[in-house]
Amino acid sequence: MRILLSVLFFVLVGTNSIALAKNWLTLPDVAPAPESNPTTPEKVELGKMLYFDPRLSSTGTVSCNSCHNVMLGGDDNRALSMGVHGQLGGRSAPTVWNSAFNSVQFWDGRADSLEAQAEGPVTAGVEMGMKNWDDVVARLEKIPGYVQAFKTAFGEDAVISKENATKAIASYERTLITPNSPYDRYVKGDESAMNEQQIRGMNSFSQVGCAACHSGAAFNGPTLPAGTGFYFYFPTFTDSDYVAKYDLLKDKGRGEVTKNNGDDHRYKVPVLRNVELMAPYFHNGSVKTLDEAVKVMAKVQLNKVLSDEEVSDIVAFLGALTGEFPEQTFPRLPATSGETLTP
Amino acid sequence: MRILLSVLFFVLVGTNSIALAKNWLTLPDVAPAPESNPTTPEKVELGKMLYFDPRLSSTGTVSCNSCHNVMLGGDDNRALSMGVHGQLGGRSAPTVWNSAFNSVQFWDGRADSLEAQAEGPVTAGVEMGMKNWDDVVARLEKIPGYVQAFKTAFGEDAVISKENATKAIASYERTLITPNSPYDRYVKGDESAMNEQQIRGMNSFSQVGCAACHSGAAFNGPTLPAGTGFYFYFPTFTDSDYVAKYDLLKDKGRGEVTKNNGDDHRYKVPVLRNVELMAPYFHNGSVKTLDEAVKVMAKVQLNKVLSDEEVSDIVAFLGALTGEFPEQTFPRLPATSGETLTP
Repeated sequence: MRILLSVLFFVLVGTNSIALAKNWLTLPDVAPAPESNPTTPEKVELGKMLYFDPRLSSTGTVSCNSCHNVMLGGDDNRALSMGVHGQLGGRSAPTVWNSAFNSVQFWDGRADSLEAQAEGPVTAGVEMGMKNWDDVVARLEKIPGYVQAFKTAFGEDAVISKENATKAIASYERTLITPNSPYDRYVKGDESAMNEQQIRGMNSFSQVGCAACHSGAAFNGPTLPAGTGFYFYFPTFTDSDYVAKYDLLKDKGRGEVTKNNGDDHRYKVPVLRNVELMAPYFHNGSVKTLDEAVKVMAKVQLNKVLSDEEVSDIVAFLGALTGEFPEQTFPRLPATSGETLTP
Repeated sequence: MRILLSVLFFVLVGTNSIALAKNWLTLPDVAPAPESNPTTPEKVELGKMLYFDPRLSSTGTVSCNSCHNVMLGGDDNRALSMGVHGQLGGRSAPTVWNSAFNSVQFWDGRADSLEAQAEGPVTAGVEMGMKNWDDVVARLEKIPGYVQAFKTAFGEDAVISKENATKAIASYERTLITPNSPYDRYVKGDESAMNEQQIRGMNSFSQVGCAACHSGAAFNGPTLPAGTGFYFYFPTFTDSDYVAKYDLLKDKGRGEVTKNNGDDHRYKVPVLRNVELMAPYFHNGSVKTLDEAVKVMAKVQLNKVLSDEEVSDIVAFLGALTGEFPEQTFPRLPATSGETLTP
């Protein structure tokens, strides 16, 4: 029996091709959309305008793209994001790229859809700083191009509303998918798409246990119905120096939302696609490099100390998750003629 | 003789076609570039990346585009721009669109080229807040994609430097031209391109005296050699309530640069292309609407009080100066892998 197990172990682990023995998934070309908001080109176009429009902030200086920069990795590369008047947010901005594959949004999962997520930052005092959505709607109503764009997207009787604005933004965000990473091409059969170190890292990623949570096509857990959420405690093993060093217990995560102690320090498992572009790491942006993030995760989630080689290999594999960013044209932001809507 | 003059006056002024009797110029398709920095596609592409890269600011939150937003009218629609940490600048951001047709840059003309202009904001404490250009270069050198892009743009031996970075940004800015406005089409012979009010406004613009300074293809004065500058005193007539109301004498304009009293309150005559998109108006952004800006200009520059109809007509004509904005694709900003360069 012991011999048989050894043989099996060799078959499963002892070759580079092991990686493909697992159910490794490639990124879909299209993200799921809710029945209440099917994606259309007109909504996407409107959503793109809104996404890039700094006039959705009180000062006229902050757009969705300011903190979720699609020209970068879909975030701002800052520990904590900076909103109007240079104010700091409480958590690190998650990426917008492939966020359509999350079943809930925000680190604490408090939004059950991209539509619900898009409501929040616009009226958050330290983010875009608008007083309320009535003010946002009133401002947009003064821009003739938006009045028309909402009709084009939602029908001739449609008005500018929070609901339609967030639907459009969500529709645009659902197009932000990065396919054809080296990992995807490897899984589809192109053995040269990843190098040996990346393949070793892929195996380590699985065997060390990272893939227990970071599974699925976006490496953020299994595909779940919208609103479900795939959460995990972070840190799980609290008896590590890393916990104090990176202040990992200060934020209660999902517990802040549910006020249920059992949810304290639980977080949505984040997407790992393009993770090499998203430094610094974790909900509080406390870890500056991906190497260190891998070490910390292994220790506080799996109670394992990785060798330097394992860290390097896993980081190399994570680099293979960087996909192709679709070429996009700038939106023209609709004009106001001869007046301004911001200070 | 008097009769002859009257006839001549009728011929020149009495019909809508008068406008074309003057030397009205259309916008060139290509902006002039200095011999030391010929425009190439590679430089334009690099310049576009740098222009949109917030990592050129201390906080990683402010790019050239933050205050000179090409998705809007090339400015930020704010009275005073907002830099890192929400700090306010001292003047209103001029538009980047068609700025290549200025012979000097900044309201006070202190930069003799787009290259020289691009140096300033990056290291201005209230704008992008970098300590010095050595720090900017050191940051860019850590981004492999930039190392390569500078070589592609400037030759295999080229290094990342302030000189090359500002050359690239200037090359990109020289592509930001908005041709084919209703005005341009009208001047080229399409009589339907402007409506009657706009044509009346064109005549008023000329006859009231606006065109004395706002001449030329970009309505910023005659074409002059780079570095020359076309300046005018603002306000010229100081005995107007507008002067105190809009605080027009606080800023010394070009006098702040030259320390020559004779230059106090002189400013570069700004581009009027797309002016309807650039509210609020003037160097201090003190005037909220284009209607009011036209009234103020007539009074403090020409000592004239315009009728409401003249104001409406001139504003309608200025609206005809809004051109076509070329479609552009987003740059991909070169990546750092697994680390961040900003706070």
